[in-house]
Amino acid sequence: MADKKKLVEAITSREEDFAKWYTDVVTKAELVSYSTVKGCMILKPAGYAIWENIMHELDARFKATGVENVAMPLFIPESLLQKEKDHVEGFAPEVAWVTQGGGEMLPERLCVRPTSETLFCELYKDIVESYRDLPKCYNQWCSVVRWEKTTRPFLRTTEFWWQEGHTAHATEEEAEARTVQMLNLYADFCEEMLAIPVIKGQKTDKEKFAGANSTYTIEAMMHDGKALQSGTSHNFGDGFARAFGIQFSDKDNSLQYVHQTSWGMSTRIIGALIMVHGDDSGLVLPPRIAPTQVMIIPIAQHKAGVLEKAAELQETLSAAGLRVKTDESDKNPGWKFSEQEMRGIPLRVEIGPKDIEAGQAVIVRRDNREKQIVALDELTGTVKAALEQEQADMLARARNFLESHIYEARTYDEFMDAIANKPGFVKAEWCGELECELKIKEDTTATARCMPFVQEHIADTCVCCGRPAKKMVIWGKAY
Amino acid sequence: MADKKKLVEAITSREEDFAKWYTDVVTKAELVSYSTVKGCMILKPAGYAIWENIMHELDARFKATGVENVAMPLFIPESLLQKEKDHVEGFAPEVAWVTQGGGEMLPERLCVRPTSETLFCELYKDIVESYRDLPKCYNQWCSVVRWEKTTRPFLRTTEFWWQEGHTAHATEEEAEARTVQMLNLYADFCEEMLAIPVIKGQKTDKEKFAGANSTYTIEAMMHDGKALQSGTSHNFGDGFARAFGIQFSDKDNSLQYVHQTSWGMSTRIIGALIMVHGDDSGLVLPPRIAPTQVMIIPIAQHKAGVLEKAAELQETLSAAGLRVKTDESDKNPGWKFSEQEMRGIPLRVEIGPKDIEAGQAVIVRRDNREKQIVALDELTGTVKAALEQEQADMLARARNFLESHIYEARTYDEFMDAIANKPGFVKAEWCGELECELKIKEDTTATARCMPFVQEHIADTCVCCGRPAKKMVIWGKAY
Repeated sequence: MADKKKLVEAITSREEDFAKWYTDVVTKAELVSYSTVKGCMILKPAGYAIWENIMHELDARFKATGVENVAMPLFIPESLLQKEKDHVEGFAPEVAWVTQGGGEMLPERLCVRPTSETLFCELYKDIVESYRDLPKCYNQWCSVVRWEKTTRPFLRTTEFWWQEGHTAHATEEEAEARTVQMLNLYADFCEEMLAIPVIKGQKTDKEKFAGANSTYTIEAMMHDGKALQSGTSHNFGDGFARAFGIQFSDKDNSLQYVHQTSWGMSTRIIGALIMVHGDDSGLVLPPRIAPTQVMIIPIAQHKAGVLEKAAELQETLSAAGLRVKTDESDKNPGWKFSEQEMRGIPLRVEIGPKDIEAGQAVIVRRDNREKQIVALDELTGTVKAALEQEQADMLARARNFLESHIYEARTYDEFMDAIANKPGFVKAEWCGELECELKIKEDTTATARCMPFVQEHIADTCVCCGRPAKKMVIWGKAY
Repeated sequence: MADKKKLVEAITSREEDFAKWYTDVVTKAELVSYSTVKGCMILKPAGYAIWENIMHELDARFKATGVENVAMPLFIPESLLQKEKDHVEGFAPEVAWVTQGGGEMLPERLCVRPTSETLFCELYKDIVESYRDLPKCYNQWCSVVRWEKTTRPFLRTTEFWWQEGHTAHATEEEAEARTVQMLNLYADFCEEMLAIPVIKGQKTDKEKFAGANSTYTIEAMMHDGKALQSGTSHNFGDGFARAFGIQFSDKDNSLQYVHQTSWGMSTRIIGALIMVHGDDSGLVLPPRIAPTQVMIIPIAQHKAGVLEKAAELQETLSAAGLRVKTDESDKNPGWKFSEQEMRGIPLRVEIGPKDIEAGQAVIVRRDNREKQIVALDELTGTVKAALEQEQADMLARARNFLESHIYEARTYDEFMDAIANKPGFVKAEWCGELECELKIKEDTTATARCMPFVQEHIADTCVCCGRPAKKMVIWGKAY
């Protein structure tokens, strides 16, 4: 019970220390435990249940586009990792190496996969012969390992969980279409399920994935105004195919290289979920993704009929397809309210002797604490409507926050001022040169989040160097 | 197409060479690919889809008993692995060690988990304080690594996929009840979903899990008469709790050690699925677990209305909750029949111009090739009934095979003769001494598969040494 006491008492407020608030929430909502394995986290039931719902929904959306799941090895031999030059340069510094197995030194080091492009390339080289074998649209759900110096639960850990899709196509156009399709799928998923609005765009060359021709990204804004890259989709062109020799005979019998893509979303998105919607009472989960959508809290539960009525309501609501639990523990109701709020459960139903007598219940939304007295025979419909409204309101609130925290900068002074003093993103024109990206990062720690698909004309010249502008870029500090 | 040709032509028969038949089936039904990562396999879409169905069904059954999913780190620090003496002795020789990470030598080696008892113990030590925190019933779906010298897809690979459940309880009785409950859950799952009958029993001390007080097992019989251990459930007593210091304050405020269990089922079970049901035309999948239950094969599909009718049938059958595909490729029907048989699809529906004219279709079961002409307006009901009958027949056939291949031995001569000449299991009495187990293994390569829960009295004395018998044991050669 010592832990429980702390849970309700000590939550740092977001304004006081956002980083500490975040840590408080992930641990007190019991999403993760720290592990003694350096940099690794444990996903506890409440955290893993969110990831299960994310997996379930994303997986269905993938399959609807023709994606098939596979499972690839955990290890990548060093020689295989080295086949594509940019890729190995990007990843080699941050991998873990297995050097001993079964009591012996290995003849070749195996890295624990940081991502699996090389393994998929090897498979595709093996199974693709003809245009009839294309496209291949494979995905796997797994964990990957990247050696990190400083780690934070969900946001940056040595091991994290994700899906990685890898596709091979006959033409450049088809690969590009798949790359964009998956980015749109991620964006729709974030908005529809997580109530997180995102900005879609292309990464600059500096920020793109190691080995990709182009990387598309969705960027979300956290409550502190910082960006979180929430999903990426890469078009590799035929670069990996040339490095690995993945060729097929086309309809005219000519040998062609395949065009490839990869795309991923990870447990990092749970960090976004926390930092977009959470408040000073803890987690706030959008109803569609919440493992428990409704918590029934009996009032004066020792009195005759209360627990029975609670069980009856749970059965009714569950039968209507809702995910419902009842807190029958011996804690007092106020304590239970705080716990349910800390855990971000979207709606609570209070039911006590007086309510039963009056044929009603009290429902309270998590996001805005709106209270409603509901006749018991209208409970199911009202609860469903309240959850839908909560989902919609959370998205609208997050979208309003995002849109009201993007600033335009025409001059470098405006730019510096916005980054320094206004939490949020800055849109500004860019000449396309790495030099300006580096200077901006050096001066402000902000990075180019993306070149949005929806471009606006802010000015004629680069906000940094004054040369002719090529692209409008969204800049921001990022997780 | 070269591969496809081989697929239909070259299948070794089971009688000719069972091991080669197995390899032919796993590769030609496209369940796995060999990987260049030594000892590791790739689960291709057809193989992974079976595993997905297994996971989906098992997971629902676990959750119905109160199990919650978590995700634990991939790595175990050497010092943590060493905390329980028997456990480290059992696993240390077969683990892979990470010694380098992020470009540096690690201060302590990390093993890639071969199983996660030690990690769960560390977590439980952290989160269990009071009897109110018990029981903890956690499970994870993941892959584990055990360095193997000789490997075969599904049966023995360096990396394999599984679930591992780990529970902690206040009392010995509760831990024992959970151990048995999960074994029964596995047995029911095998019979109901996979049509694989199993023998439930306890492992001898020699064969039990490293660190367990007792290991319960389900043993299935393959077509060649060999055993395949298909799922295990371990009762650890308080051994791990004492090694890791996992204590809770009981209702009377006394400090007690928890009692723990673990239980697992792995991708190995897919090997059983293949070797129990497969035939000389390839895989035979039980309808309840088959990713595709019905394959519609259009005959003379270039003729007007055939593909349209096939699409209509697919829609009707899908709407009835069946998993249905149509093979619209340009191969000829005979070829398609062979492919569908190789892949083990439980039922095919043939539909051609003459069928359409007659308002009928032909359905053919995979297991016994029984052919039935069905009026189109009765198709859904007939297909459903045929699939149910096929599932039931497959279980009955497998049960009959199992029961008719278990032999009793009262003398060592009978025992030696049965093991040498009769594929299957032998039941015989045992004195309980390791010495006899070792001698039997030395003389016959057979091992004690289990001491069945359902004991019979075969004789008064041990089949090996003639001393008084303590237990009836099921002996057999095993995968």
